Amino acid sequence: MKEFLAKAKSSTQIISTLDSRTKSRILKEMAEAIFENGSYIIEENSKDMALGKKNNLDSALLDRLLLDKGRVTAMAKSLVEISALREPVGRVLDGWVNDDNLRIEKVSVPIGVVGVIYESRPNVTSDVAGLCFKSGNVAILKGGKEAEFSNRAIAKILQSVLEINKLPIELISLLPDSTREGVAKLIKEDSFVDLIVPRGGEGLIRYISKNASVPVVKHDKGLCHTYIHKDADPKKAISIAINAKCQRPGVCNAMETLIIDREIAKKLLPSIYKAFVDAGTKLKGCSATREFIFVELATEDDFDTEYLANQLNIKVVNSIDDAITHITKYGSGHSEAIITENYTASEKFLNMIDAACVYVNASTRFTDGAVFGFGAEVGISTNKLHARGPMGINELTTYKFKIYGNGQIR
Amino acid sequence: MKEFLAKAKSSTQIISTLDSRTKSRILKEMAEAIFENGSYIIEENSKDMALGKKNNLDSALLDRLLLDKGRVTAMAKSLVEISALREPVGRVLDGWVNDDNLRIEKVSVPIGVVGVIYESRPNVTSDVAGLCFKSGNVAILKGGKEAEFSNRAIAKILQSVLEINKLPIELISLLPDSTREGVAKLIKEDSFVDLIVPRGGEGLIRYISKNASVPVVKHDKGLCHTYIHKDADPKKAISIAINAKCQRPGVCNAMETLIIDREIAKKLLPSIYKAFVDAGTKLKGCSATREFIFVELATEDDFDTEYLANQLNIKVVNSIDDAITHITKYGSGHSEAIITENYTASEKFLNMIDAACVYVNASTRFTDGAVFGFGAEVGISTNKLHARGPMGINELTTYKFKIYGNGQIR
Repeated sequence: MKEFLAKAKSSTQIISTLDSRTKSRILKEMAEAIFENGSYIIEENSKDMALGKKNNLDSALLDRLLLDKGRVTAMAKSLVEISALREPVGRVLDGWVNDDNLRIEKVSVPIGVVGVIYESRPNVTSDVAGLCFKSGNVAILKGGKEAEFSNRAIAKILQSVLEINKLPIELISLLPDSTREGVAKLIKEDSFVDLIVPRGGEGLIRYISKNASVPVVKHDKGLCHTYIHKDADPKKAISIAINAKCQRPGVCNAMETLIIDREIAKKLLPSIYKAFVDAGTKLKGCSATREFIFVELATEDDFDTEYLANQLNIKVVNSIDDAITHITKYGSGHSEAIITENYTASEKFLNMIDAACVYVNASTRFTDGAVFGFGAEVGISTNKLHARGPMGINELTTYKFKIYGNGQIR
Repeated sequence: MKEFLAKAKSSTQIISTLDSRTKSRILKEMAEAIFENGSYIIEENSKDMALGKKNNLDSALLDRLLLDKGRVTAMAKSLVEISALREPVGRVLDGWVNDDNLRIEKVSVPIGVVGVIYESRPNVTSDVAGLCFKSGNVAILKGGKEAEFSNRAIAKILQSVLEINKLPIELISLLPDSTREGVAKLIKEDSFVDLIVPRGGEGLIRYISKNASVPVVKHDKGLCHTYIHKDADPKKAISIAINAKCQRPGVCNAMETLIIDREIAKKLLPSIYKAFVDAGTKLKGCSATREFIFVELATEDDFDTEYLANQLNIKVVNSIDDAITHITKYGSGHSEAIITENYTASEKFLNMIDAACVYVNASTRFTDGAVFGFGAEVGISTNKLHARGPMGINELTTYKFKIYGNGQIR
């Protein structure tokens, strides 16, 4: 393990000297290699699928695990898109001359060795490898056990392109020891690893946060709210609420609780109720909600649960302050939305809500690196430090100060 | 402890709503209060000084601990300067319209609750309190035991200004349990504390890095090098080398090892030797160094030591690559300098050295928030994530995305 990590660390010197054109060319070669070896990847993936079925993985998991021709092509396409992104290294982020006539430049540089720990979807392997490569970082990838054959196949193909280009295969590699012990070692090696990005279940993320000595930017749960303010446009309110919950209920930026002002609850809740029932959503509500519509009573625990399913809590509040208090208590700092035509209410919500993404009159489902225009994403950070919200290639860089003098002493 | 931390956390809502003018006014009131209560602070400080002498603290430590009228005035002045800094909250860092016609704004916001752990110098208490207040953060301060009377006096004065302004005193407070156990608890409370900045000895920082579940930005050791390239201007080389080591040997941005190209060692080392001997510097050197001047042999351990004293290692290398290899091996990623008139060598050094601050033809002693123009500094980060190098008020902010829609769904 130490030997592997030492090689990974020393490879940072090699990747940091690759110029933008070379990196782009190699990424395109990787895309071609993925495309050409599609049938090999699908063959290996079918081993994972067979094991998954044998181990009774649920259908949603199996669907995420599956690679077919279309998904392999999408993986290749994503690498081509990453290759076309603006070079993230060497951006001049700031620059000035100080009182000593030193010219100070703040310039983006790669982070170094980045470990990404993720589950199920094997396309993450090529996406994250591509993003790390483009941003000049060495990638150590640890996918889920259920996707082991698929991830190995993908990594092998990417490494073959590195070999053809006479680059060390350590630039992109799977964690050699993929057991829990392997992960436990990885997250402690702060002299070799510069960043850990865990994406996955709450248990995994809590374990890593508590035990890592390497800095962690976590892709944690999304407990998102949509608040329908008394001055909301009813049409926007209903369509956004339905979209935020139902378009894809199993993802982190989907809504878990709908909050609505008492003042318009009587008028609006019945139509909202109907729309959700039509969409097959299981509804619960606070006691005030049950004055207006007939739903099961939502408990404290319900308000604190990321359902990841077509299920929703409804909460009736007396004011925007109550809505903000509820969100501050239960929200996970991921994505929160207000629906209102009222300027002052929108400003108050935007400023008071402490979350990575705060929306006015739009669905929380938009929190996504690709949608934001970042190209692919490494994850959605629920950290406050370093990166917050969707993380693209720029969030895989740090900076250094270059200081140009002409003999200055202090 | 939990109760105290919960109060601190809930106070973030209060400070985040204070406008820029109010914060500036209160900071000026704090400066006045410090100035007016100078004799009280000096009185309390004299208790720390007496205890320090009784406990045989060395003279350098005692000097750092001492507060006299000049230093109290400087503390007050620093608060006035902080009050005049540009408002760090609400800066629009980026903004664009995405393909869905959502207007996305990336805006700076306070981090939340910031814990700063530091040693000896009591002026850090008011500096850090001022920086946190200006940037809308709640400050939890843990100074050294040796400065306990002084720190309590300063905190009490700052809190009295908060009280006059009807603000919770939790906005600026000393950690109630200032024992090691108190610190151990603080760094685990990631639901209440958003950032820990440890400043101090290696032991403290290693302990915190290993045990914290709160994100840590560490102000770690500085093992800094100055590399005299073969095309260096001899005059600049000598004056920068002397300044980097001798102007203030006990600080993190002072040089520990001087590296020099063999090609100019014969010509330059004797004068360098003389200059350092005149400055009272204790010298050691690699075996190649001893071909040119008579110094004690430097061991591996010497090259790996932050002396924090007027002591220096000298290393003779055959090329810039060897210099970079040495720095990569022993450097702490703090500040590194090359002295050269050669353009290509300067570019290579700037790009290949992985450190927060990389200098051409200037002393590493310039790595400092005030010198960089940041106003006062929270510390100098040796982290790669979030903040690197001098940390001012902007580094005490994170960001959120504000997203303005008109009914968009996905």
